Amino acid sequence: MTDISGASTHLQHHRQQFPALANKAYFNFGGQGLLPTRSLTAIQQAYEYTQDHGPFSGKVNEWRLAQTGQLRGAIASELRTPPETITLTENVTVGCNIAFWGIDWQVGDRILLTDCEHPGIVATAEEIGRRFGVEVSTCPIMATLNQGDPTAVIQQHLTPRTRLVVLSHILWNTGQVLPLKEIVETCRNTATENTPIRILVDAAQSVGSLPLNLSELGVDFYAFTGHKWWCGPAGVGGLYVKPDALEHLHPTFIGWRGILMDKTAKPIGWKPDGQRFEVATSAYPLYVGLREAIATHQQWGTDQSRYEQICQRSQYLWQRLSELNSVRCLLNSPPQAGLVSFVLTDSTPSSQLVNQLEDKGFQLRTLRDPDCIRACVHYFTDYEEMDRLVDAIANQL
Amino acid sequence: MTDISGASTHLQHHRQQFPALANKAYFNFGGQGLLPTRSLTAIQQAYEYTQDHGPFSGKVNEWRLAQTGQLRGAIASELRTPPETITLTENVTVGCNIAFWGIDWQVGDRILLTDCEHPGIVATAEEIGRRFGVEVSTCPIMATLNQGDPTAVIQQHLTPRTRLVVLSHILWNTGQVLPLKEIVETCRNTATENTPIRILVDAAQSVGSLPLNLSELGVDFYAFTGHKWWCGPAGVGGLYVKPDALEHLHPTFIGWRGILMDKTAKPIGWKPDGQRFEVATSAYPLYVGLREAIATHQQWGTDQSRYEQICQRSQYLWQRLSELNSVRCLLNSPPQAGLVSFVLTDSTPSSQLVNQLEDKGFQLRTLRDPDCIRACVHYFTDYEEMDRLVDAIANQL
Repeated sequence: MTDISGASTHLQHHRQQFPALANKAYFNFGGQGLLPTRSLTAIQQAYEYTQDHGPFSGKVNEWRLAQTGQLRGAIASELRTPPETITLTENVTVGCNIAFWGIDWQVGDRILLTDCEHPGIVATAEEIGRRFGVEVSTCPIMATLNQGDPTAVIQQHLTPRTRLVVLSHILWNTGQVLPLKEIVETCRNTATENTPIRILVDAAQSVGSLPLNLSELGVDFYAFTGHKWWCGPAGVGGLYVKPDALEHLHPTFIGWRGILMDKTAKPIGWKPDGQRFEVATSAYPLYVGLREAIATHQQWGTDQSRYEQICQRSQYLWQRLSELNSVRCLLNSPPQAGLVSFVLTDSTPSSQLVNQLEDKGFQLRTLRDPDCIRACVHYFTDYEEMDRLVDAIANQL
Repeated sequence: MTDISGASTHLQHHRQQFPALANKAYFNFGGQGLLPTRSLTAIQQAYEYTQDHGPFSGKVNEWRLAQTGQLRGAIASELRTPPETITLTENVTVGCNIAFWGIDWQVGDRILLTDCEHPGIVATAEEIGRRFGVEVSTCPIMATLNQGDPTAVIQQHLTPRTRLVVLSHILWNTGQVLPLKEIVETCRNTATENTPIRILVDAAQSVGSLPLNLSELGVDFYAFTGHKWWCGPAGVGGLYVKPDALEHLHPTFIGWRGILMDKTAKPIGWKPDGQRFEVATSAYPLYVGLREAIATHQQWGTDQSRYEQICQRSQYLWQRLSELNSVRCLLNSPPQAGLVSFVLTDSTPSSQLVNQLEDKGFQLRTLRDPDCIRACVHYFTDYEEMDRLVDAIANQL
C-alpha cells in the first residue's frame, strides 16, 4: 500500500525526528519507544547547562525545580489531571510498588490480579501477601480477548475482603484494552463504605497511546512510564494518585524529595501532593528529554488523532498478518490499540522468527504467556514498513 | 601558594577533563561531583548506540546486560567486594530504603540513629517505627566531633532490642569520619546470636573519597551514590549487602530485574545476588557514564593516593579558613576527609555569604544543623582556587 498524499509527506517529515527509524522497521514501542532527536539534544544541553552553572548551586537548584515542575505539568496536561496528582518515578514498576506498599494492609485482606499482569507485579503482590497475611487471587481475563466480559469476570472475583484490584489498562501480551471506566464503576458499586476497593492500573502500554482523562476515569492509582509510547528516555516514569486516595496511601521508600523539614532540617511531615512519594536525586536532564518527547507528539497532533492513527495502522497490520497462512492473530477482530500479537501455526519457534527478523532490520519481540510474537505500531509507523514486515514474515515461514 | 612542580602540571592536565571547572571554583563535591567529559561523551554515544541498534532489540538487550555487568564490576572493584554483593539503585536513599524495609521487623524492635543523619533517613526510620511498632532512638554523635568517643556513644545506646544501627561513614554536616570498623566490632560483641544487630551505612560522602574494603569492613548494608565523590551522572547509585545478610533481607520494591521466572514468565524466586533488589528499567546510558567517571579517577591514581590528596587539600583549606577572623571551623584538628564545615562568627547569615560567593564564581552550600557552611575539596581541587576562596570569604566579611 503506497500513500502519496500530503498527510504522508507530513508523516515522512515527522518520522525524520526519530533517528532510530533511519536503519530499521521498528515494532517494539511496547518495549521502548524511539527517542526524538530533540530529546537527545535537550538531554545533552541539560548536562552542559548543569555543568556550566553548577552542578550543585543555587542556580542549578532553581533550574532543577523548574524542570521538575514543567515535566509534571506536561504529564498532567496529557493525562488531564492536576499536576499535584503526579509523582515522578524511575519507571512504571516503581509507581506500582508505591501503591502496593502504601496501603495499610490487614491480615485477611485480598488483592485481585488479572492473569495478564507483568511478572514483576505478580511477584510484588505475592510478597505483600507473604508479609502481611494478604490473600492474592487471579481472575481469568486472557480468555475474554475474543469473547466474554472482562468486567463480569472481575466482578465475580470481588469479595468483601478485596481491598485492591490490580490490572493493566492495555494487556501487554494480547493487546486487549480493558473497559476501565466500567470496571471502576463495578468495583465502586461492590465496595462498602468502610472498605473501599482501590484500583491500581499498570498503564505501561496505555500512556502515550490511549487518549486519557484521569480525572474522569476514577481509578485510584495509575502507574506509567515515559520510555514506551511517549518515546522518552528510559529511567523516567510516574504515578497518578487520585486526590481522595492520597491521604490513605503512606509513603514507603522515603527521601528528602517527599518530606517537609523545619529550620533545623528535621522531618515534620509529607509534601502535600504527589511529591510525597518521590525519594531523592534523579537524572534530571532526562526530565527535559521526556518533556521534549511529549512535545514532539503534541506538535504532530492531539492524543485523539494519534490514537486514531495507531488504530488504523494496527488494523491494517492485523488484517495483513491474518491473511498469512502460517500466522494466527490472537485477536479475532481489529485491535483497539497499537499491539498486534500473533502465533505461528507451523512449527517455527517464535524466537527463531524474531531473531531472523532482527537480522533483516525488523524489531519485534516474543512473549512467553501466551507464547506469541508482538508487533507494536505507533501513530508514525508507515504502511510501507508494515508491508515489508508482512512480506519478510511470509518469506521466513 | 603556587606549585609549579610536575605533579601540578599533571593535575592541571587532569582538571581539563572536568568542563565545569572552566568557569568556577567548585566546593560542592558532597552535593554533586563534576561530570568528566568522557562520561558525557560516553552517555551521548550510548544513546546513539541504543537508537542505532534498537532501542528494544536482542542486540541492545545484550549491550544492556554487558553494561550493567561492567558497571557492577567497576563499583565492586573500587569497593573491594565481589560484584554479586552490589545492587544498582537510583540513588543512595533508595539503597538505604531497601535495607530499612527488607528487615523482618517485630513490635518492640529498636532502630538506633546518630543525630547527624540525613532527614530522608530520619523520616524513613520514623515511618518504619509507625508501621511496625518499632522504637527509633538517636544518639549524640555530633558532640564527639572534637572530643569524646563515637563508638562509646553508640555502645551506650545499644539495647537488647536494637536490631539496626544507622549511621553515616562520613557525617555530611560536620565532615567527621566515624571509626566504622570499631563500631561494627562493638555491635557484633553486644549482639546475641539470635538477634544480630545489623548495621546500615549511609555512604553518600565516603564512596569516592575514602579508600574502602567492604569485604573487611563487616557492615551489613552500605548505600552509596555515583554522582557525588565519584563524579558520575545523577540517577545512579548502589547498595552493598554483606553475603550473610542477603538471605535475611527481603526485597520490597520488586520488579522484573530482581526475579527468576519460569517458561511462562511466572515469578518463581529471587535472583541469587544483589540483583534481587533491583526493580525495573533504568537509564542504562548513565551506567556507562558512571563507569567512565570511575575510570577517570583510576587513571589519575589509586583510591589511597586520591584520599591522601583530598586530606592534604582539606587540611590546607581548614588551616587557611581557621586563620580568618570571622570564621570558625567546626573541627579543631585537620579534617580526615574532604568536607570542611565552618561557621561565621560575625552576624553574616550563612546563606548570604554562600549566595555572594556563588555570584563571584565559588560554589559552596549551607547546612541547617549545625547552621554552617560546607566547602568540599576533591583530589583535583587546586591550591590556587582554595586561596581565591579564602580571599573571597575574607573580602565579604
